[in-house]
Amino acid sequence: MTDKYAKIVSKGLGKDVAKRLGLPQPVELRRHQPGAPLIDGPVLVNGDSRGADDLATTLLGWGLDVRRHALPKEKLGAIIVVLDAVQHPEDLGKPVLTIGASLRDLAPNGRVITLSRTAGSASGPASAAARQGVDGLLRSLAKELRAGATANGLLLDADLATTSPSALGALRFFLSGRSAYVDGQFLTISSSSGSLPFDAEKPLAGKVAVVTGAARGIGAAIARTLHRDGAKVVLVDVPAAGDHLAAVANEVRGTALQLDITRDDAGHRIIDHAVERHGRLDVVVHNAGITRDRLLANMDERRWQSVIAVNIAAQLRINEALLASEHFKERPRIVSVASTSGIAGNRGQTNYAASKGGVIGMVRLTAPLMESFGGTINAVAPGFIETEMTARMPFVIREAARRANSLRQGGQPRDVAEAIAFLASDAAGGISGEVLRVCGQQLVGA
Amino acid sequence: MTDKYAKIVSKGLGKDVAKRLGLPQPVELRRHQPGAPLIDGPVLVNGDSRGADDLATTLLGWGLDVRRHALPKEKLGAIIVVLDAVQHPEDLGKPVLTIGASLRDLAPNGRVITLSRTAGSASGPASAAARQGVDGLLRSLAKELRAGATANGLLLDADLATTSPSALGALRFFLSGRSAYVDGQFLTISSSSGSLPFDAEKPLAGKVAVVTGAARGIGAAIARTLHRDGAKVVLVDVPAAGDHLAAVANEVRGTALQLDITRDDAGHRIIDHAVERHGRLDVVVHNAGITRDRLLANMDERRWQSVIAVNIAAQLRINEALLASEHFKERPRIVSVASTSGIAGNRGQTNYAASKGGVIGMVRLTAPLMESFGGTINAVAPGFIETEMTARMPFVIREAARRANSLRQGGQPRDVAEAIAFLASDAAGGISGEVLRVCGQQLVGA
Repeated sequence: MTDKYAKIVSKGLGKDVAKRLGLPQPVELRRHQPGAPLIDGPVLVNGDSRGADDLATTLLGWGLDVRRHALPKEKLGAIIVVLDAVQHPEDLGKPVLTIGASLRDLAPNGRVITLSRTAGSASGPASAAARQGVDGLLRSLAKELRAGATANGLLLDADLATTSPSALGALRFFLSGRSAYVDGQFLTISSSSGSLPFDAEKPLAGKVAVVTGAARGIGAAIARTLHRDGAKVVLVDVPAAGDHLAAVANEVRGTALQLDITRDDAGHRIIDHAVERHGRLDVVVHNAGITRDRLLANMDERRWQSVIAVNIAAQLRINEALLASEHFKERPRIVSVASTSGIAGNRGQTNYAASKGGVIGMVRLTAPLMESFGGTINAVAPGFIETEMTARMPFVIREAARRANSLRQGGQPRDVAEAIAFLASDAAGGISGEVLRVCGQQLVGA
Repeated sequence: MTDKYAKIVSKGLGKDVAKRLGLPQPVELRRHQPGAPLIDGPVLVNGDSRGADDLATTLLGWGLDVRRHALPKEKLGAIIVVLDAVQHPEDLGKPVLTIGASLRDLAPNGRVITLSRTAGSASGPASAAARQGVDGLLRSLAKELRAGATANGLLLDADLATTSPSALGALRFFLSGRSAYVDGQFLTISSSSGSLPFDAEKPLAGKVAVVTGAARGIGAAIARTLHRDGAKVVLVDVPAAGDHLAAVANEVRGTALQLDITRDDAGHRIIDHAVERHGRLDVVVHNAGITRDRLLANMDERRWQSVIAVNIAAQLRINEALLASEHFKERPRIVSVASTSGIAGNRGQTNYAASKGGVIGMVRLTAPLMESFGGTINAVAPGFIETEMTARMPFVIREAARRANSLRQGGQPRDVAEAIAFLASDAAGGISGEVLRVCGQQLVGA
């Protein structure tokens, strides 16, 4: 669970040696600390559209130190590139070259964030080319940044304003330390729903959230993060994990529900528990998942079916109960944990990748079913995360997987939890049916 | 342009040493030879749906040695898994475990091909989960196959039959040596348009095809492949490449057109040349492209703009002329060369990735504009291809890029050309707006 290599090469002699040998030198990422500023240093808002002006005004209103033009030699906390009005690939050059000239002034752990529009909503080929061009550009740029800096993009659907609630919500997420391990990714804002929290430190105040698989690892981190953000948490895990579950539940002042999620009545039990104990149910995080790796040539039915049963069939059944419940109708949120394996596939994981690909398909087709009552459903897809599970991997495979991303290190369970907490919040109300990778821009892809 | 390592480890002592050291051992891929059978060995058609039955009957009609159940110890040329009727992730287990048991009997350079439906056209979450599950499954399986065997999938939109023309066309492509370097990929069949060729060896007989950047490398390979498939080829390149261009044009008995494609009138010149010299214009392959790599922090306007101008702006302008021309209305085909860099980004290539991402956006939004007259537009995205350009890469970077894919080797220019020839054919009439990666299932992704 610890990355000894990263510690050795981050200071003193180790740092010096690693630098001389050209070895990867991961830096300690800036992560969210309660009370810390959203971003350290000035924020350059580049772009001359109305959308850029409006955004700059809003950021000034947040108390950020906003620049519309870079000052010589001044270190920048973030560079925001507003490309909402580009109509042709030739329009990209001026803004992109302008920010290119400022990249050397980007502070460690800084941020580059693009705001552009979805290619699918373009009016024609030239506009679509410009918009999809931002995709190739941003992903390349993310691979060029160093020292913990990341590049991510917001995609506004159709005519949404740059200051629509979830655009601002996602912008805050990307600027903050909450997105430390999200790199080279896009989030699509598909509606003007959503609202920024009254208290930025407690965006989930008043919400009741259920987390499955909460006894340890990523699930426990999710429970802690939702609690930190103000939610009352119901922690679900199998009876065999009862002691761990109780310990985490006590820590976050939540309640424990021992439950096998593959039971037919799991959804009803979850709803009943939340409503009876806490009076409501706002957020369900489908985190519980298992692996039973084996090459397909050696796969047996038990391994295959158990992974499908826990990782996707249970989610489908629980969601049916949620969608049918009168207690899950006030802007509810579902967030599922998928995996980069479900996107790119992984040797030895046909069953796991099928289940996690399944989660992605499920999320996309469930989103429209939740729209009428202001609900959203999204997935996060973790890459290499430092857990007990990855700690058991053989050394060479673990090291390779750990470094094969733009941040040259594994993520922490809390990084996954932060993305989930954001998607569970009111600020993400305009985001639904999306898959957000939390992978440090992991090399593997489709 | 040659892969000495692959030659050394493919036989004799080198093979033995590589095996003992656990080094990658790329095999020589089966590539299309005129007159060779579509596939060597029996084809197992797995699945008990009506779609599976119909497909098996069709393949029998092609003279293939079809099995509906595996025979003990018999080597298989291909395994086709028909999953067109799955409704729930739990439906995947039986067919997948059945083919898993047959994987050890798959011959070297064999094929696994799934036929399933697009997740987007699913009727609800469970069905979408099953369909998207096939994605994770197939990509995992492709990473498990060895000895030149590949796994690819067909995605049928909505209610399309397994025997619709382009499903069969794509199936033939995937079975054949033409798809040697396509691995872990899906092709979506979106309509019942298209027709199989009268002469399978000359699928482009009677067609006039334009190829830009045809003087060398991938462009020359495209010209040769389109010629082999029966097309009359117009070879376009800049005047400075005139000698090379003339040589390739002579070789393929085509005509050369010296032209800077960034000229305003490039589209009209292409159309005029084709119609005046050959009486018609059926296929345009946008292959011409340049790289001007530089980190964005060091990028200058000339490098940025020239890449955008050649790689995407020229294509947009030429397509406008094509779409407006009365000579490009009989089931015409446009095929653009994108790049995996345009999908995943690449360090030092913000300009190139923006242009190639642009190509992908352009293709998607141009597809509907060509539908009314039976036209299609698609892109291929090459991964690491052995060309003069990649031969100039530093040794270590080249070796890493060459092996970072499931086939453990770079592709050949002809592999890209084969995919383009397929997409240019009548058999691909039901495929439009798609991007087909020719990358050996390259590790890098979005």
